[in-house]
Amino acid sequence: MSAYEELMAFDRQTQALRQIAGRLGWDQETVMPRAAAPQRAEESEAMEQVLHARRTDPRLGDWLAAIDEAALDQVGRANLRHIRRSFTRATRVPARLAGELARVTSEAQGQWAEARAADDFAGFAPVLARIVALKREEAAALAAGGDLYDALLDDYEPGATGAELQAMFDALRPRLVDLRARILGAAHQPAALTGSFDEQAQMKLTRRLAKAFGYDMAHGRIDKAVHPFSSGSGLDVRITTRTNPEDPFGAVYSTIHETGHACYEQHIDPAYLLTPLGAGVSMGVHESQSRIYENQLGRSRAFTGWLFGEFKGAFGDLALADAEAFYAAANRVHPGFIRTESDEVQYNLHVLLRFDLERQMIAGTLDVADLEEAWNSRFEADFGVKVERASQGCLQDVHWSVGLFGYFPTYSLGNVYAGCLHKALRADMPDLDTHLAAGDAAKPTEWLADRLQRHGGLYEPKEVITLACGEAPGEGPLLDYLEAKFSEIYRL
Amino acid sequence: MSAYEELMAFDRQTQALRQIAGRLGWDQETVMPRAAAPQRAEESEAMEQVLHARRTDPRLGDWLAAIDEAALDQVGRANLRHIRRSFTRATRVPARLAGELARVTSEAQGQWAEARAADDFAGFAPVLARIVALKREEAAALAAGGDLYDALLDDYEPGATGAELQAMFDALRPRLVDLRARILGAAHQPAALTGSFDEQAQMKLTRRLAKAFGYDMAHGRIDKAVHPFSSGSGLDVRITTRTNPEDPFGAVYSTIHETGHACYEQHIDPAYLLTPLGAGVSMGVHESQSRIYENQLGRSRAFTGWLFGEFKGAFGDLALADAEAFYAAANRVHPGFIRTESDEVQYNLHVLLRFDLERQMIAGTLDVADLEEAWNSRFEADFGVKVERASQGCLQDVHWSVGLFGYFPTYSLGNVYAGCLHKALRADMPDLDTHLAAGDAAKPTEWLADRLQRHGGLYEPKEVITLACGEAPGEGPLLDYLEAKFSEIYRL
Repeated sequence: MSAYEELMAFDRQTQALRQIAGRLGWDQETVMPRAAAPQRAEESEAMEQVLHARRTDPRLGDWLAAIDEAALDQVGRANLRHIRRSFTRATRVPARLAGELARVTSEAQGQWAEARAADDFAGFAPVLARIVALKREEAAALAAGGDLYDALLDDYEPGATGAELQAMFDALRPRLVDLRARILGAAHQPAALTGSFDEQAQMKLTRRLAKAFGYDMAHGRIDKAVHPFSSGSGLDVRITTRTNPEDPFGAVYSTIHETGHACYEQHIDPAYLLTPLGAGVSMGVHESQSRIYENQLGRSRAFTGWLFGEFKGAFGDLALADAEAFYAAANRVHPGFIRTESDEVQYNLHVLLRFDLERQMIAGTLDVADLEEAWNSRFEADFGVKVERASQGCLQDVHWSVGLFGYFPTYSLGNVYAGCLHKALRADMPDLDTHLAAGDAAKPTEWLADRLQRHGGLYEPKEVITLACGEAPGEGPLLDYLEAKFSEIYRL
Repeated sequence: MSAYEELMAFDRQTQALRQIAGRLGWDQETVMPRAAAPQRAEESEAMEQVLHARRTDPRLGDWLAAIDEAALDQVGRANLRHIRRSFTRATRVPARLAGELARVTSEAQGQWAEARAADDFAGFAPVLARIVALKREEAAALAAGGDLYDALLDDYEPGATGAELQAMFDALRPRLVDLRARILGAAHQPAALTGSFDEQAQMKLTRRLAKAFGYDMAHGRIDKAVHPFSSGSGLDVRITTRTNPEDPFGAVYSTIHETGHACYEQHIDPAYLLTPLGAGVSMGVHESQSRIYENQLGRSRAFTGWLFGEFKGAFGDLALADAEAFYAAANRVHPGFIRTESDEVQYNLHVLLRFDLERQMIAGTLDVADLEEAWNSRFEADFGVKVERASQGCLQDVHWSVGLFGYFPTYSLGNVYAGCLHKALRADMPDLDTHLAAGDAAKPTEWLADRLQRHGGLYEPKEVITLACGEAPGEGPLLDYLEAKFSEIYRL
């Protein structure tokens, strides 16, 4: 076997073990007996140590040094790119630091949950300060002289930089703040969907929706989970959803969102199975798929027109007059403090706030002790309301307490990418609304599969978006789409 | 850390990884998407290689050599006994042979299924001959000069020998053959339970039954599977069952059987969690628990009396007149070729036949080419009927095609042990039937937990049975119990 073949054989087993670790996470959130958690923690830790040993195995360095990259084809070079990045990152972080980060963030989850329940940021601040210090240390090890935040970002969005994101987000912010203010001040305010909605009927509907968007049930399944997610790559990609008797849109749009993630994984070229190319290439590109399915397609007038009929079939008569009122209800913008309960317009403002603050914390220009005040004043600037409790503010998300710095901006990057893809899709498919109005999302799914999803990790994130859209991504299409859509709904 | 502490820390991670491998098997049989199998095969193989590397890790040998065993307490010595046995066995088998066995038996499963469907033993014989040759080679490596069959048996029932089992089984056979003949020739033949039984009501009943026998749902769950099994140790022990609208006894008794296995795992001393002592000590002892729950308790007159009422509640009026007829139906003996469809009386005859034949194959005194003829003539001798198709005969079980030689006798050993435990339980608990008649099996479960289950792997198999029963095990109690019970039911 050549060095390349040996490397790929070794990596294939690592990929298979990573799938097992992912399945263990799925099990924990869906079917695990409730009192099994302490044992599961040990199992997950043992699995993580196996994976860590493989990521840092010295043979990887030998193989990488021995391979003549010029002799490889495009796929071979892309494989090397992924493996080299992973090996470099894993070996740059000292084992002592990796272990301490794992331990501290593991303990911090419980401490964060307690602090959030008590609205006690001051009590949690020392824990978060320790995490930020460790993440800065990790970032310094990874950056090797470069920018600290970029080094963390690279884990979720290879190739992206904080400066580049800053420029993109700076362009988003003023137009979003303005749009938000005009919507909330509009004379016309659409009614919300109210009533009680059978949860079994909701689950039945989620299955129809997942299939309508191209999800393959022979290679997947849908279960309930407290926080919906999609998990797995290749031939076994599972999604979860949740139901709430008072809010059927929650089940509908979390299902369509996760279906977007899952379809991306399911449509990757089968030749890439259990290789570095056999999974979505970045968090941002992944989120572009979940967002375009959920928002640009799933919350479109055409699709909600079909969905209105489905709702009447599933739940009986609704309190809303017609499909137009239903469309407006599915796109309703309302004031609120919580990112995860937000809508298309306000969501990115929530994320931009976090991006700015976490970038400052990692740069060392914002002290963790001052985080709550910084959060609250920024929130008031962007949303016009005062945050009164930490659970509504800087304690609402779990991310920082588990060490996820550099993750938040990928949510907005996904929205920006979704805006670009949607523009290209509409240009290519003039009859898109005809399909959506019939509840058939197979055509746009095919377009996305062909333009983007099938490539898996072959290209760099921005490269594959550019390839799919025919132009470099920018914030313009998302902003134009939002302004046009919500101006109409709110009669601005 | 001392050598012992280092060894135990290493082993604990191995135990955790073994639990993950077991969970992967559970997932495959219950919730895995149907088209995910090819990827799962690679995942399982990768996991198996991780475990194999840990079982043969040279550091184990160093630690074992460095430990001063005399300085350890009883638990420490028992831990060493298990780890040393596993290490010795794993390192005695050359990697080349282990790999070939894995490959050949993996392929043979499909070949066996095809041969069984076509009733074609001749076509499968060369495959089985190859497996037997490899198993003989493996046995020779393991036996290190000792008996080949004993070396294989040791994997499932440490300490047992073929000669010892032969003596026990020789005593079983004549009395079982005689009892079987008298039952099937009896003038009084109880009616079977017939009708159609709602499958959802069956599943609901299985949950009640598992709880009645002491199964802890906070540390487990019940799902459907084609072939029921119990899986996992410690805080996460899951059982599966199946339903058949025409045969509710299938769901009932496979559930109680698996509950027996699961209770054994759940009641092990929590101090043994993720150590070599934290799982059932052998297949035979495990089977003694599943069998005593299923048969001596679950098929007793007292318990079926309660169950009769449950059935009427769950399924409406039954075609059987009264609790006595229901008891007889639950214990009905009928002619048949298939081991897994057999009853308490005939089951061991099926097993004894396999034990004799596999022992001869491993000894080299029975050629695989002559297996079908040997099977059929032995079957006719014990059961009085002629086998007409290989699928009714030597191709009915998957065991040999996956290399399980030395496994079959543990089924009967479990029945023999269950007979001994039942005798001791009745002597200790004169009011056992009062509890069972109220549908309450918590008391016998407590007795079994205290006498046997809590010890996990602390004692050797025969040792723990002797300890629990107050005397060395023998076939007498099982035979006495069967003759008394069935003489009454069949009015012999």
